[in-house]
Amino acid sequence: MRILIKNVHALLPDGTTPLTNIMLDGTKISAIGEVPEDFHPARVLDGTGHLAIPGLVNAHTHASMTLLRSYADDMNLMDWLQNKIWPIEAEMNRGDIYWGAMLAAAEMIRTGTTAFADMYGPFMDAVAEVVIDSGLRGVLSRGIIGVAPDGEAKIAENTALYREFHGAGEGRVTVMYGPHALYTCPPDFLKKVAAEAQKVGAEIHIHMSETKGEVENCLKEYGKRPFAHVESTGIFDGGTLAAHCVWLDDEDISIIKRHGIRVAHNPGSNMKLASGVAPVPRLLQEGVCVALGTDGASSNNNLDMLEEVQLAALLHKVDRLDPLAVPALEAVRMGTEYGAQAVGLKDTGKLAAGQQADIALISLQNTAFCPKHNLVSLLAYSARSTAVDTLLVAGKVLMEKGELKTLDEERIMFEAQRCADRLTNLRK
Amino acid sequence: MRILIKNVHALLPDGTTPLTNIMLDGTKISAIGEVPEDFHPARVLDGTGHLAIPGLVNAHTHASMTLLRSYADDMNLMDWLQNKIWPIEAEMNRGDIYWGAMLAAAEMIRTGTTAFADMYGPFMDAVAEVVIDSGLRGVLSRGIIGVAPDGEAKIAENTALYREFHGAGEGRVTVMYGPHALYTCPPDFLKKVAAEAQKVGAEIHIHMSETKGEVENCLKEYGKRPFAHVESTGIFDGGTLAAHCVWLDDEDISIIKRHGIRVAHNPGSNMKLASGVAPVPRLLQEGVCVALGTDGASSNNNLDMLEEVQLAALLHKVDRLDPLAVPALEAVRMGTEYGAQAVGLKDTGKLAAGQQADIALISLQNTAFCPKHNLVSLLAYSARSTAVDTLLVAGKVLMEKGELKTLDEERIMFEAQRCADRLTNLRK
Repeated sequence: MRILIKNVHALLPDGTTPLTNIMLDGTKISAIGEVPEDFHPARVLDGTGHLAIPGLVNAHTHASMTLLRSYADDMNLMDWLQNKIWPIEAEMNRGDIYWGAMLAAAEMIRTGTTAFADMYGPFMDAVAEVVIDSGLRGVLSRGIIGVAPDGEAKIAENTALYREFHGAGEGRVTVMYGPHALYTCPPDFLKKVAAEAQKVGAEIHIHMSETKGEVENCLKEYGKRPFAHVESTGIFDGGTLAAHCVWLDDEDISIIKRHGIRVAHNPGSNMKLASGVAPVPRLLQEGVCVALGTDGASSNNNLDMLEEVQLAALLHKVDRLDPLAVPALEAVRMGTEYGAQAVGLKDTGKLAAGQQADIALISLQNTAFCPKHNLVSLLAYSARSTAVDTLLVAGKVLMEKGELKTLDEERIMFEAQRCADRLTNLRK
Repeated sequence: MRILIKNVHALLPDGTTPLTNIMLDGTKISAIGEVPEDFHPARVLDGTGHLAIPGLVNAHTHASMTLLRSYADDMNLMDWLQNKIWPIEAEMNRGDIYWGAMLAAAEMIRTGTTAFADMYGPFMDAVAEVVIDSGLRGVLSRGIIGVAPDGEAKIAENTALYREFHGAGEGRVTVMYGPHALYTCPPDFLKKVAAEAQKVGAEIHIHMSETKGEVENCLKEYGKRPFAHVESTGIFDGGTLAAHCVWLDDEDISIIKRHGIRVAHNPGSNMKLASGVAPVPRLLQEGVCVALGTDGASSNNNLDMLEEVQLAALLHKVDRLDPLAVPALEAVRMGTEYGAQAVGLKDTGKLAAGQQADIALISLQNTAFCPKHNLVSLLAYSARSTAVDTLLVAGKVLMEKGELKTLDEERIMFEAQRCADRLTNLRK
């Protein structure tokens, strides 16, 4: 179907925001500019008073954990995990995974996110179902804990997920392998995951160097820092999305560059869990692809990617005492273009002819966008994601003027609360 | 007039959020709880599906600077001030000051702020007019630069502002003196301001120890750190609201405690301008009143106090690598109860009988508040200020279900854009 988004400010790859028209043909952007006489759209979306940006890409999350939003906060990490998060996760059934992911999908659509990289489980088929039905793009991986008795079974589940869903939903579902982290997967186990992933041709999504303690323990146990240790297992040989990457030294960064590892930076989660500040300005300077993620909603506590763009633009300035660190446009690119690249989406993440039509329309008719000296600065430093009122993925409208087109939000919130209540009653 | 806010979750001073009723009588909260048979409200606001919180207090801003939102970003501080901000400020006329403050007022009402402490000028009478007409509370001070040739005249303007407006708008306008900072006001000049303020019985609003350079230059020039230096001028003797307070040592903190100085912490601005991280957890631990502010919208770039609550809750955790630093409830109190105390508002900042009826109603019918395990965590870590849909100040409704009752928002945005366009054309 041909769609015309007319009279809209479009954030182009060069950072300009001219008033123009965006033409879609099928799943892609066919042109941006003057509308040719022979372009006959089946639908016209009036972009007046709106800024069109590439859809935001959440490069690291655990969607179904949205069910645990505000369940446990302001605790020390291990106390939080061992006494709150892990016990309640152990009780989650397929319905919980499904409605948690549905709640995440509704929130992502509302806040301008068009694609997300997810690591969770069990029942990742339920998350795939959510991706297919919501119209979003999902890069799914089964979170694999090698130290658990069913570690091997989880590798098999990831393989089944790949076989059943990679390329499903008209290509909107893709599958990676999700070895959780080096401290939950011994080296021989990581080797198995690497071999299996490479056998099917899938990439890896893994947590790396999130906390200082992780680095210290890795040094103590294996005599190497995390990147050198994991490199030795072959995990990085088939393409890798590495979440966090907070505690890095020169050697770590050279390994990241050597393997073309893409980094998912999670400023909100790193701040809330007090993990530390990742060396993002340096990584960007060295040409590493740094995307943004929210992490799970229980450590954030939302899936608001525009908030992560703002945090990325603010955190590194104060951390480096450098007001030029991560400028507005670079932060926006991390949330869009670099995000798409990081999670392995081809021809996605930019407003340009030939790119996938993953587009968020943001209303400029609110005080946060007044006055309009610089739309990119306003987007990065002032806007709120609630100003997103229309969202397209692969040329399909998922939200129009604030109304969700693929999901029943009322029902989702009702069911999510019901699941949450059941889980917390079990834990009382 | 008696108003009943019925069936609402109310954030009480102890941090609980029971489902209850709030009764207002005139400008105050008369009771919270069961509605007595003899309470006959003239109006009933249905609080179903809402959380009532004390109105947010913006303890440090420059409201009219909202006109410069996104005018200049991602620059070094002195380059930004000298080449962009100060030249355009020099062109601002009374209309600019008025419409800039009107834009700020509209944004504050929309985002749940009921009171703000402002330092700016000239034409602070225009800001007073905005406070009176909008229904907000404003704690106004004339920003006084002593090194300018008209320094003395500015003290006189501040005195005139006090004489004309202190207590105006049924007490909603109060006036402080605004000596800008020690680096723009030589010591003898600060002494004059202190004497004048104490003569009329007004408090002081001043920038203190915002940057490392300010502390170093003060040591070089006066042989003392900023707090000892300013203390010697008498500025702290009549009650002080000190903005920023980023670079503090033990002696500074003991001076803050000795004079009961209230601190306005501005996490967003401190991050964006790369000023540094204020030692907020320590100040709170030592019993100092620490409030939150946005600073001007040109260094933030919005007036969203809930964002500052979230930043305060996040920034200090990662700065101290302590996930227990500034927990959710404490961050919310900084934005409400401590804010009211910091800017000198009596009986304001808490939902309790006898307190001023400054109340924000936040809709819980959105994904950011789902599921509802803990409303305070959701407020601090997940909510967006756009969920505020009803706002009362001194028992008067300024916004109801998203509709502004005292201001014409469309007109304000139009006029603000017109002023901004005129100013930037002058600077071209």
